[in-house]
Amino acid sequence: MLEKVDLTKKISKEEYKEKMPQLEVRIGRLQRECKALGIPVLIVFEGFGAAGKGLQIGHLIQSMDPRGFEVHPIKNETEEERMHPFMWRFWTKTPARGRIAIYDGSWYRRVLIDRFEKRTKNKDLPAAFHSINSFEQQLAEDGNLIIKLFLDIDKKEQKKRFDKLAKNKETAWRVSQGDRERNAHYDEYAAMMEDMLFKTDTDYAPWTIIEAMDRRFATLKIYTTVIKAMADQIEKVQRQNTEKAAAKAEQAKAEEGIQSAGTGKNGCENDIEEIARETDAEMKELQVSILSKADLTLSYTREEYKEKLDKLQKKLEKLHGELYRRRIPVVLGFEGWDAGGKGGAIKRLTQKMDPRGYVVNPTASPNDIEKAHHYLWRFWRAMPKDGHVAIFDRTWYGRVMVERIEGFCTTEEWKRAYKEINDMEKDLYDAGAIVIKFWMHIDKDEQERRFRERQENPEKQWKITDEDWRNREKWDQYEDAVNEMLMRTSTDYAPWVVVEGNSKYYARVKVLKTVVDAIEQRLREE
Amino acid sequence: MLEKVDLTKKISKEEYKEKMPQLEVRIGRLQRECKALGIPVLIVFEGFGAAGKGLQIGHLIQSMDPRGFEVHPIKNETEEERMHPFMWRFWTKTPARGRIAIYDGSWYRRVLIDRFEKRTKNKDLPAAFHSINSFEQQLAEDGNLIIKLFLDIDKKEQKKRFDKLAKNKETAWRVSQGDRERNAHYDEYAAMMEDMLFKTDTDYAPWTIIEAMDRRFATLKIYTTVIKAMADQIEKVQRQNTEKAAAKAEQAKAEEGIQSAGTGKNGCENDIEEIARETDAEMKELQVSILSKADLTLSYTREEYKEKLDKLQKKLEKLHGELYRRRIPVVLGFEGWDAGGKGGAIKRLTQKMDPRGYVVNPTASPNDIEKAHHYLWRFWRAMPKDGHVAIFDRTWYGRVMVERIEGFCTTEEWKRAYKEINDMEKDLYDAGAIVIKFWMHIDKDEQERRFRERQENPEKQWKITDEDWRNREKWDQYEDAVNEMLMRTSTDYAPWVVVEGNSKYYARVKVLKTVVDAIEQRLREE
Repeated sequence: MLEKVDLTKKISKEEYKEKMPQLEVRIGRLQRECKALGIPVLIVFEGFGAAGKGLQIGHLIQSMDPRGFEVHPIKNETEEERMHPFMWRFWTKTPARGRIAIYDGSWYRRVLIDRFEKRTKNKDLPAAFHSINSFEQQLAEDGNLIIKLFLDIDKKEQKKRFDKLAKNKETAWRVSQGDRERNAHYDEYAAMMEDMLFKTDTDYAPWTIIEAMDRRFATLKIYTTVIKAMADQIEKVQRQNTEKAAAKAEQAKAEEGIQSAGTGKNGCENDIEEIARETDAEMKELQVSILSKADLTLSYTREEYKEKLDKLQKKLEKLHGELYRRRIPVVLGFEGWDAGGKGGAIKRLTQKMDPRGYVVNPTASPNDIEKAHHYLWRFWRAMPKDGHVAIFDRTWYGRVMVERIEGFCTTEEWKRAYKEINDMEKDLYDAGAIVIKFWMHIDKDEQERRFRERQENPEKQWKITDEDWRNREKWDQYEDAVNEMLMRTSTDYAPWVVVEGNSKYYARVKVLKTVVDAIEQRLREE
Repeated sequence: MLEKVDLTKKISKEEYKEKMPQLEVRIGRLQRECKALGIPVLIVFEGFGAAGKGLQIGHLIQSMDPRGFEVHPIKNETEEERMHPFMWRFWTKTPARGRIAIYDGSWYRRVLIDRFEKRTKNKDLPAAFHSINSFEQQLAEDGNLIIKLFLDIDKKEQKKRFDKLAKNKETAWRVSQGDRERNAHYDEYAAMMEDMLFKTDTDYAPWTIIEAMDRRFATLKIYTTVIKAMADQIEKVQRQNTEKAAAKAEQAKAEEGIQSAGTGKNGCENDIEEIARETDAEMKELQVSILSKADLTLSYTREEYKEKLDKLQKKLEKLHGELYRRRIPVVLGFEGWDAGGKGGAIKRLTQKMDPRGYVVNPTASPNDIEKAHHYLWRFWRAMPKDGHVAIFDRTWYGRVMVERIEGFCTTEEWKRAYKEINDMEKDLYDAGAIVIKFWMHIDKDEQERRFRERQENPEKQWKITDEDWRNREKWDQYEDAVNEMLMRTSTDYAPWVVVEGNSKYYARVKVLKTVVDAIEQRLREE
């Protein structure tokens, strides 16, 4: 999740000053509503040392009613805590219904600092992760809202902050030997962070990455994230209450002929809905953006293209045979903007491959039989045999893009899909498959150019429909969904590759090269 | 789960003939309703070889509409299947909405036969279990009903059946070398079964043990289990539909002032409810009974008791000091029938222990603060420090007994509690604790005798309340709940011990001896 994050995001002082007051009012409002509805809230602050956890917690609580929250600083264990099971101190610190518990550091210690310092042994990690997930799932199922914030800064920034703290006598104590160690081995520690994020990013307790290089940006994003999560949970509880009350009223009416007193919405709900909607809009510019990091100026000349393409295609032809002999299956998924170049890339990829050894699966809207099954069923059916290559032109990721945006599935459904998809791809990987997913990326202007070209060119007109134009209007919604998808489903074993696609030449070569490299690496490993 | 099962259960020919016809009618009825509601059903048959899976499937499908189900025999993989990820053949064989898929053998192969024959390596087991649980959870969340039946016979019976098959030329082919191997190493294979049952017994896809020594008993239990599960799922879906429709109607009414057309129950529901209720009653005598295996005639004379008690108490006194020195925590949970002897046993247990090293936690109804937290919170708070002993007089198992029976929690809540409790106890064990749970068992007559004694004895009158008599009326319901609890939560790391308690002397000595033995074993292991 981390490697793809764009840490350069900033907010100006003016924008910050303009936006904060209303966010502060909203937090207060939502805290009162959570209290009224008896919703317990856990807010977890994790991340790199000196990323500003303490400072941010200070900001956040300023707008809360102090009678309704508690901050738990989670440092080294006390004697008492050391003498209990690890989760004991956290179980005993869970909030009562209607209250907010804020954790400065948390139960993640055990798979982060304790792991880095080898107090947690590798063999104990699976049980530690199981405990953590079980703890969070139990609380979530019991109605707790769990908000997990990961404050991210890079190695250089961390060092700079440590140095600054160390220089000042009054703050020098805050930089420990351990902090310095973790900075020196930043990459190693970041890999543990990454592993932790992946294993504990669940639908019931998802992680939000907070880009914390710029403190104002971080504050805004934390406020917005907390507000959105609280508003959503309140709406969910209100909806459940309404449904239950309505069902009860209906039943009473049916059974006894009594006219129900009405269980319609109250005034509060509308105000929460409004907060949720407004926050949604504000979330936009704060969201993790992976796409924005893509350098769309990358390009090849026609000559470069021809030469590279030829070389790579010949290489792939050979490798394809080798895959067949060694019985290694390959799964390649293509997603991307309309007119992003999926078709062209797939064509160049397969041009010299033996057609008996690959299949291209075009993914249209599900038919009736497909709809009568789990959404992954049709993709499972199309998974390749050992030694074969399956190419998907659009994929199972439709669940978290078009189905999410068009409302073809419920919020619960697309939220849990990240984990389901990760699990499926893990099964493929465990069975020996090479799995790669490509996001064919172009910018909005380039898309318009290509749409117009298609419309004007009689041979390409079939490629453009009204739906394409309609989808284009939802570009921003798609961008959010794609960024979230890339973050939550790019794994070691099945990475996402963002293909800079404004230059078709560049894109096609990158796809080919990525596939060739991945196969060569696998063959070396075997 | 298996070691505690009473395999001697039988059904007479007469009873069988009397009961089957109505069960067959019900299956047909429920199949039609599942079809109408679009509920896909998976029925998994697993268990020991020669337990009668094929025969039982034959029985079951006789009462089903053949256009609505499919039987999948899961034998060795075909060439095609071997060339795909393991779960591929099962994903592709999931039923469409409204259809029933029956699996003769299943995805459990990989952690059973394949594990026994070392085709599945130990290092691959965690991933295999993860795949299985993920597969089942995904389907369950997508609305599939998953019924898992485990046919259980003992080693001797299995051998007898194999011998009989082998003798006859026409059936000899059905007994493979592998079957003979697994019979020869029955205990080793049973341990794998046990491990599998424990790791995959979930709230979304629970196992039902079918005692398959007596074929009629097995058939009746399979029918009843399938009927109950289908009826429950139908009711759940109907309830959800009603709630949604009612909420929608309410909303429409509130928003537009339109009078809703009414979404009350239809005629079908009542008939399903009736089936569920009747089947519930019939389930009783079919349920796994662990309590019935307890030999309540076990007793000690006063002399035997005195001598043993004295010896064990002295031993425990010493061991208690050793626990403290070695910093080993001990958690002892006491549950049992009212007047089952919990108090007396705890008194004898602690009589010679250093009072600074143990705490007895009496568990009453939760107070307001406890109610404002997760039900496990108050127990977590009371967990012992290293080197200390925590004794619980009544425990967290209230969730699956009194809360279940009195409706203090929802069905979903107590169903998932087994896993939650197993997870908590695993955390305690992983932190080094010795965890033992005692069920103080007496029969109904003995309870009455003790109740009357309490009423007549002025010094004991405080011990008996009207509530005790009321609970007694629910003896049968409690017995079912206790049997299920013992089966689903007795683990290697935190076993249940059923204490034969009609003789108080015997019971107290057994409790003491169990604790002493467990501590001695732990000390030897360290």
